Amino acid sequence: MKKLKGNLLYGQSGGPTSVINASAYGIIKEAKENNDLIEDVIVMRHGINGALNEDFFFISEQDEVDIELLKHTPGSAFGSVRYKIANFKEDETDYVRLLFLFQKYNIKYFFYNGGNDSMDTCLKISQYMKYVDYEVRVIGIPKTIDNDLPYTDHTPGYGSAAKYIANTMMEISCDMLAYPKGKVTIVEIMGRHAGWLTAASHLATVKGFGPDLIYLPEVPFSIEQFKKDVRRVYGEKQQCLIAVSEGLKNEEGMFISSTSALKDAFGHFQLGGVCTKLSQILNNEMRITSRSIELGTVQRSASHLQSLTDVNEAIEVGRQGVRYAIAGVTDIMVTINRISTNPYKIEYGKHPLSEIANFERVIPPEMINKEGNGITQEFITYVNPLIQGENTPPYVDGVQQFSIMKQK
Amino acid sequence: MKKLKGNLLYGQSGGPTSVINASAYGIIKEAKENNDLIEDVIVMRHGINGALNEDFFFISEQDEVDIELLKHTPGSAFGSVRYKIANFKEDETDYVRLLFLFQKYNIKYFFYNGGNDSMDTCLKISQYMKYVDYEVRVIGIPKTIDNDLPYTDHTPGYGSAAKYIANTMMEISCDMLAYPKGKVTIVEIMGRHAGWLTAASHLATVKGFGPDLIYLPEVPFSIEQFKKDVRRVYGEKQQCLIAVSEGLKNEEGMFISSTSALKDAFGHFQLGGVCTKLSQILNNEMRITSRSIELGTVQRSASHLQSLTDVNEAIEVGRQGVRYAIAGVTDIMVTINRISTNPYKIEYGKHPLSEIANFERVIPPEMINKEGNGITQEFITYVNPLIQGENTPPYVDGVQQFSIMKQK
Repeated sequence: MKKLKGNLLYGQSGGPTSVINASAYGIIKEAKENNDLIEDVIVMRHGINGALNEDFFFISEQDEVDIELLKHTPGSAFGSVRYKIANFKEDETDYVRLLFLFQKYNIKYFFYNGGNDSMDTCLKISQYMKYVDYEVRVIGIPKTIDNDLPYTDHTPGYGSAAKYIANTMMEISCDMLAYPKGKVTIVEIMGRHAGWLTAASHLATVKGFGPDLIYLPEVPFSIEQFKKDVRRVYGEKQQCLIAVSEGLKNEEGMFISSTSALKDAFGHFQLGGVCTKLSQILNNEMRITSRSIELGTVQRSASHLQSLTDVNEAIEVGRQGVRYAIAGVTDIMVTINRISTNPYKIEYGKHPLSEIANFERVIPPEMINKEGNGITQEFITYVNPLIQGENTPPYVDGVQQFSIMKQK
Repeated sequence: MKKLKGNLLYGQSGGPTSVINASAYGIIKEAKENNDLIEDVIVMRHGINGALNEDFFFISEQDEVDIELLKHTPGSAFGSVRYKIANFKEDETDYVRLLFLFQKYNIKYFFYNGGNDSMDTCLKISQYMKYVDYEVRVIGIPKTIDNDLPYTDHTPGYGSAAKYIANTMMEISCDMLAYPKGKVTIVEIMGRHAGWLTAASHLATVKGFGPDLIYLPEVPFSIEQFKKDVRRVYGEKQQCLIAVSEGLKNEEGMFISSTSALKDAFGHFQLGGVCTKLSQILNNEMRITSRSIELGTVQRSASHLQSLTDVNEAIEVGRQGVRYAIAGVTDIMVTINRISTNPYKIEYGKHPLSEIANFERVIPPEMINKEGNGITQEFITYVNPLIQGENTPPYVDGVQQFSIMKQK
C-alpha cells in the first residue's frame, strides 16, 4: 500500500444530527494520531460550498476544549449544506474549482459526512479526480437520523433521535393521561420515505406510555382505516395517542401532506403538517377534539438526550474511515455491521459508494404489524441496543456547552 | 395548637408540570414522618373529580419504588382535572358531596396542588367547611410552569420548564445555523398572560445560541414592528431565530392567535398557532422563508431535563405544607421567598389563599428591554438560580422509568 501524505478535507452535508460532530471528532482524533501522513484536517464551511468558496476551518488552529465539545454539540459545528453537484460530464465548473483547491491545499483525503445525497457527492468527486488523474482517497461517513442508508445495520444519528423520540413520547403520553377525558393527540415525526424514527415511538408503548397507533410511510395510508382505528381506540380508552410519519402517503403514493409544493435542491418535497391535517379530520368529521404536535427540528438536534452507544459509534465510524484511507482504501462508505444482538456486538466495515448513493432502506415488513398501524417485537429487538447509555452533556450554569469553531 | 388526627386528602389540578409529582412525594414523605397525626394520604384521581366520584388512591397501598419514582414522573401521576367548582351559595351540590366524603374518610387535611384556579378551589372548599363547621386544614401547594402566582418568588415547575426551553432553544439555534442561508425560525412557547417561559429562551441567547428576538404577552404586539425587527435582523445575519409567547396580544388586548374560539372550563381561550400565523406573514408579505415550531406539551412534561433545584424545591414545598398544617395553619398557599440571589438562598413561607386566587403575576418592566423585543440582564439574574443542577432520570434500557399508581 502506497503511503499518501497530505491534508484531509472534511465536510458535513444534509440535515443536522446530534452526533455528526462526534464523527468529526473521531476523524480529527484519528488523523492526529497519524500526523506522519495527515498534516492537518481542513474543514469546509457549509460542506462543499466551503470548498467552492475557499472557506475553511483549520483544525490545527482550534482550541482543544472546542474539539472535545464536538462530542456534545448538535447541528453542524462547521455548517452543513444541501447542494447538488452537477454531473461533471455535463458541467465541469465545480470540479475544476475543486481540483484547483485540492492541489493548492495538498488534499489527499476527502471525507464527506452525510446521507444518501452526500454519498452521491462523494462518488462524483472521486470519479472526477480519477478522470483527471488526481490521487485522493474518498471516504463517505454515514450520518442520518432517518436510518435509511443501505448496507449498514444502522446510521450514526439514528440511535440518539430514536432515544429522544421514545423518551419524549413517554412524556407526551403522561401529559395526555393527566386528564380524565383526553383528547386524541397526534405526534408528527420526521421521515420522508422511511419510518424508522416514527417506529421508535413504539419503545414508549412497550413501557406503557406510548402511542396506541403508529403510521409509517412504508404502509399506504387510508384515511378511512385511520378513522376506524381511532374510533376503536377512543371508544375503549377515551384517549388516543398517535404517532405519524411526516412522509405518510396514500395508495397512489401521494403525500398526505401535500400542502406545500416547495422542493429542496435535491428535488425532495418539503413536508410537514400531516398531523394538523389529520387533526382537522378528527375535529371536523368525527367531532373528536384533538391536539397535534410536530416534534420539529429538536428531534434531530437534541444533544441533551443522546444515546451513548450512538455517540461512540459515530466517533468510531469517523476513526475507521481514517484507518481505511490510510490503508489505501477509497470510494467506500464506512458501515456498521451487527454481529449479534444479544449481547450487542458490531464491527465496522465498508461498502462501495457506487452501490449506496441514492438508495433508501425502508423498514422491512416483519417489523410492521399486519394491520399496518403498529410495530412488532422484531423492531424492538433491533432498535433496543441503539438507544443504550446516556451521553450526559457538560452543563455549566444549567445549560449545555457547545463547541465554537474559529476562523482566522 | 390543637392536634388534629385523621387522613390527608390530596389532589392535582390544572396543566401538568414535570415536578408536580415531586410535591406529592414531599407531602407523602412528611406525612409518613408524622403518622401519629396523619394516618394515610388519600389521593383523588383527577383532582376534585376523584373526590366527587369517590375515586381514590391510598398511599399506604403503593409500592415504595413507585413513591420514589414520583420524583422523576412528569404529568400528573394521579390524574389532573380542569374543573371549576361553583360558588356554594349558588350551588351546594359538590360541597355536600365533599362534606359526606370528608366525614366518611375522616379527612382532616386537604391539600390541593395547582395554579391560580386551584387556589380558588382550595379557598372555596375551606370557606364551605367553615360554614358547615367541619374542621379541616386547607393548604394550597403551588405548581405552574407559567410562574404567574403572586406572593411567591417563583413556582415549582417553572425552573424545569425554563431549563428545558433554554437548552432546547440552543439546539434549535444550532440546527438553524447549520445552513449557510437560513430561514427565519419562529418558536412558540407556552404562556397565556405571562411571558416567564418565553423569556427563559434568553438564557440561550446569553450563551450565543438563542433567539434574536423575543416577544412577550406583557408587551402589546405590533405586526408592523415585528416585520421591521425581522427585516433588520435578517438583513444583518441572513437568519433569525424568534421566540414568541402563545399569548401575544395586540394593542387592543386581543390574542394574535384567535383562530380558535374554544374555551376551557375556566373560560380561558385555548391558544396555539401564533407561530404559524407569523410565519405566514413572513412568507406571504415579506417573501422570507420561515419555519414555525410549537414546543408543545413536552415543555411542561420534560422529566428528562429537570432542574434539580426545582425538583428539590417542589418536594420541600410539599413537606412545608404538611408542617404548616400539623402546626395548625390553614387557608394558605406555601410560598418560596428569595433571601438572596448570590448566593442563592430561599426560605419557605405562606400567604393567605384569599389574596392569591385568580391573580396573575406578569414580568416586571425592568426585565424587558425598551424595544419590547428582548430581555434584560435583570431577568437572567432572577432565573439563573432556578435552572441549576440536573435531576438525572433513572434510565433502564435507554428509557425513563415512571411511577405507576395502583388502585384496588
